[in-house]
Amino acid sequence: MSTNPAVAEIVAKYKPIWAIDSASALLGWDMETYMPPGSSEPRGFTTGQLQLMKQELMMKLVDPVAKAEKTTGLNDFEKGFLRIMKHDLNYFTKIPPKLIEDLAKVGTEGTVVWREARKKSDFNMFKPYLEKMVELKRQEAEKLGYVGHPYNALMDRFEEGFTISDADKVFTPLAPSLKSILSKVLAAGKFPATHPLESVKYDEAAMIRVNQAILKLLDMPEKTFRMDVSTHPFTTGMAIDDVRITTRYEGEDFKASVYSTVHESGHAIYQLQADPALEYTPLANGASLGMHESQSRFWENIVGRSREFIKLLFPTLKGNLSFVAKYNEEDMYRYFNSVKPSLIRVEADELTYNFHIILRYELEKKMIGGDIEVSELPSVWNDMMERYVGIRPENDAQGVLQDVHWSGGLIGYFATYSLGNVIGGMFYNRIEQDMNLKDTIAKGELGKIKGWLKEHLHKYGAVYSPKEMQTRLFGEQYNPKWLVSYLEEKYLA
Amino acid sequence: MSTNPAVAEIVAKYKPIWAIDSASALLGWDMETYMPPGSSEPRGFTTGQLQLMKQELMMKLVDPVAKAEKTTGLNDFEKGFLRIMKHDLNYFTKIPPKLIEDLAKVGTEGTVVWREARKKSDFNMFKPYLEKMVELKRQEAEKLGYVGHPYNALMDRFEEGFTISDADKVFTPLAPSLKSILSKVLAAGKFPATHPLESVKYDEAAMIRVNQAILKLLDMPEKTFRMDVSTHPFTTGMAIDDVRITTRYEGEDFKASVYSTVHESGHAIYQLQADPALEYTPLANGASLGMHESQSRFWENIVGRSREFIKLLFPTLKGNLSFVAKYNEEDMYRYFNSVKPSLIRVEADELTYNFHIILRYELEKKMIGGDIEVSELPSVWNDMMERYVGIRPENDAQGVLQDVHWSGGLIGYFATYSLGNVIGGMFYNRIEQDMNLKDTIAKGELGKIKGWLKEHLHKYGAVYSPKEMQTRLFGEQYNPKWLVSYLEEKYLA
Repeated sequence: MSTNPAVAEIVAKYKPIWAIDSASALLGWDMETYMPPGSSEPRGFTTGQLQLMKQELMMKLVDPVAKAEKTTGLNDFEKGFLRIMKHDLNYFTKIPPKLIEDLAKVGTEGTVVWREARKKSDFNMFKPYLEKMVELKRQEAEKLGYVGHPYNALMDRFEEGFTISDADKVFTPLAPSLKSILSKVLAAGKFPATHPLESVKYDEAAMIRVNQAILKLLDMPEKTFRMDVSTHPFTTGMAIDDVRITTRYEGEDFKASVYSTVHESGHAIYQLQADPALEYTPLANGASLGMHESQSRFWENIVGRSREFIKLLFPTLKGNLSFVAKYNEEDMYRYFNSVKPSLIRVEADELTYNFHIILRYELEKKMIGGDIEVSELPSVWNDMMERYVGIRPENDAQGVLQDVHWSGGLIGYFATYSLGNVIGGMFYNRIEQDMNLKDTIAKGELGKIKGWLKEHLHKYGAVYSPKEMQTRLFGEQYNPKWLVSYLEEKYLA
Repeated sequence: MSTNPAVAEIVAKYKPIWAIDSASALLGWDMETYMPPGSSEPRGFTTGQLQLMKQELMMKLVDPVAKAEKTTGLNDFEKGFLRIMKHDLNYFTKIPPKLIEDLAKVGTEGTVVWREARKKSDFNMFKPYLEKMVELKRQEAEKLGYVGHPYNALMDRFEEGFTISDADKVFTPLAPSLKSILSKVLAAGKFPATHPLESVKYDEAAMIRVNQAILKLLDMPEKTFRMDVSTHPFTTGMAIDDVRITTRYEGEDFKASVYSTVHESGHAIYQLQADPALEYTPLANGASLGMHESQSRFWENIVGRSREFIKLLFPTLKGNLSFVAKYNEEDMYRYFNSVKPSLIRVEADELTYNFHIILRYELEKKMIGGDIEVSELPSVWNDMMERYVGIRPENDAQGVLQDVHWSGGLIGYFATYSLGNVIGGMFYNRIEQDMNLKDTIAKGELGKIKGWLKEHLHKYGAVYSPKEMQTRLFGEQYNPKWLVSYLEEKYLA
């Protein structure tokens, strides 16, 4: 892909770094799936050593990248390669080792304390660690540099080039629109808050067969993909030709298992459909976390929770889960699409989910900007929750302590979940210009949708930044109106 | 463990190399267990890149190791560490990159051709590759250097310090002794050649339960050990606290599954019981392949195929495998210990197995010494087979083409299988001085045997060379008479 000798040389030198990333991905996958529980210490050692080696190899590329950037006539692959390299090197060159060490230390200790604090619903236990973490993340932002607000530097780590000005343009109009849809849905009662199927226990072996049938329906490749089990489902890739998802089996409320499988498959399809020429480079990844999440949410919600998909899936459910016998497709649609304002983000439905993110985004921005003290968080959290979703947490375990992210230093990450929904809506609008999505799903032609996504997005990997990619695809960036119109069509029609 | 600053510095620098080995072990484990079948190309790339990184890091230790060797007052750990480093560095420093490349190329191509040749039973297809490989292995021996015979340089790679003079002292008396026992056993008919249980089909889920019960019987740790499935069972370790075996389920002749589990558990116990202070060094391994195989064979044959162990296992077999109902313990003993001269090494019983190895050892020695041409191999193989085991292969698939080893360049490896049996016999004799082994097994006190092995062998890891270790344990090295006396006691009593 590279004809420029300066870039080609860096691409060649990137190979061992790619190998370290690939091996690290397998080490991470194994840790969540098959690793014996008593092996975390040596596993941490191995992972840490590989990261140090990667860092050392990356630092050797600083000068070559700076030199290559000055050459002219670069093609898109070369520009994308240098863009990613610069973005990654930025962190390694600007953050002093002492700060990396402090972040890791406070992150590890804080996560241990957070688990205990959540169990006891005791925010004060966790408070000093979060205070320390916020202070370190502010230092990180200062070292990285930013225009405008320090939080921009943190969000850029997860969503390249994304700023609070972008975020405000998304979230400010999104919140009232969603609130309006939600109140109408709750008033109409067409999408009930609970469903008897939630409490029905299922047999794991039968549920595994259902998930395997879902993979067949989605035409997931048998030679380059696999599915395993973990507590928190995830997708990881060791290579374009080795992508793996996990799903979960809690034994009841089987929609959680179904939609974990579909969601993670959405991520996997993005990885699997990258141009093979991008292999062994950092371009064989999605353009950003938001772009990645747009694919998982598109498959999970827009495709997977559609009437047409549920109809395709229904015979499989009936054939494997005996308790389904007394329900029809419409019951299933309502069970899979129940709408219920709730306190816990990971249990939220498609409609209320974004409130949980908007709240976290607002709080993170204020924490990093120094506009709110950590000690104020619990009450501000609860007030916002009541304002957005209409219910108030009774304790901090149901509120500010529910997520693991902050304890480990993942500040600036949450927004990407909602960006996934927003970009997913943009895809829905865009794809409808080329095909009738519902008809295509109804005919079971999911391969046609995969093909479209490959040609328009997946094959490019990370060649274009998330903003460039959206401009190419949609002529605009992060526009929330398409998510709103999709939700209105679905919930208010 | 290291008080000498020169050694301590190398131990510290070895950490990333250890991490590469640990990650590589996981990559290898995954390849045989869960990796999607279409991912072998990127997997080969990752493994290759990690090996190059390891080589580069190792080369930086050449001078420090040479310097540290000149210091005095080293403790056993330090001496062992430097011994292993020197042994490993010897290969990296003496073998030119071009030869490593040629060996890898001919090995990869040769293995592909060998598979096809074995399928067609066509030795001529494979002949040019084997000729090239033998020529390269001769070059390797010349580069490594040796005293006496070039084959010594090759055997030393797998069994440190082991020479043809040692091997001849083992195999020359072993062959006639085994032949004498075999002819008596065949004449007596007490250990029948076939058993009706061989052809009984089993349910895999039931067999998995049997194997899990075997792990419980052997008290394998649940937090630092696991068992999976692969075509060819193996043991691997990512760390002292992360050791994994695989077993196999062919659906019939269930003893193959039982004894794969016991055999690999024997290897695993050796790894798991290393002194934790050896972690993150190359000493957290067995002393040699022969020493390692002594542990697997000791557990598989001497413990696992004893009447007492079979008695312990019998209720589990009866409880899980319905077809066992019509057999008693004595039937099981005979089925598990059937003696049948056969053509295929991997199917051979405890008594005839060593003939397969002696034959391969003789042929390898002659090939590397230039005393036999590759073209003569098939007929010489068949003649020796007839002389040792009394039957003649009808084609080369049953003869010279049966093993994968030579195609990939594993010449000098086979002997270690029999050394495992020989050293296993030495352990049997030695342990009997401290406890009555049969009584201990009968009481189900397998933990006592594991404890003895830990104190006498396992905890030392690779601190001592295989010869030193044997001298410490037995006051002698590779003495085959204890294997012979064990087999006489078992088969002729």
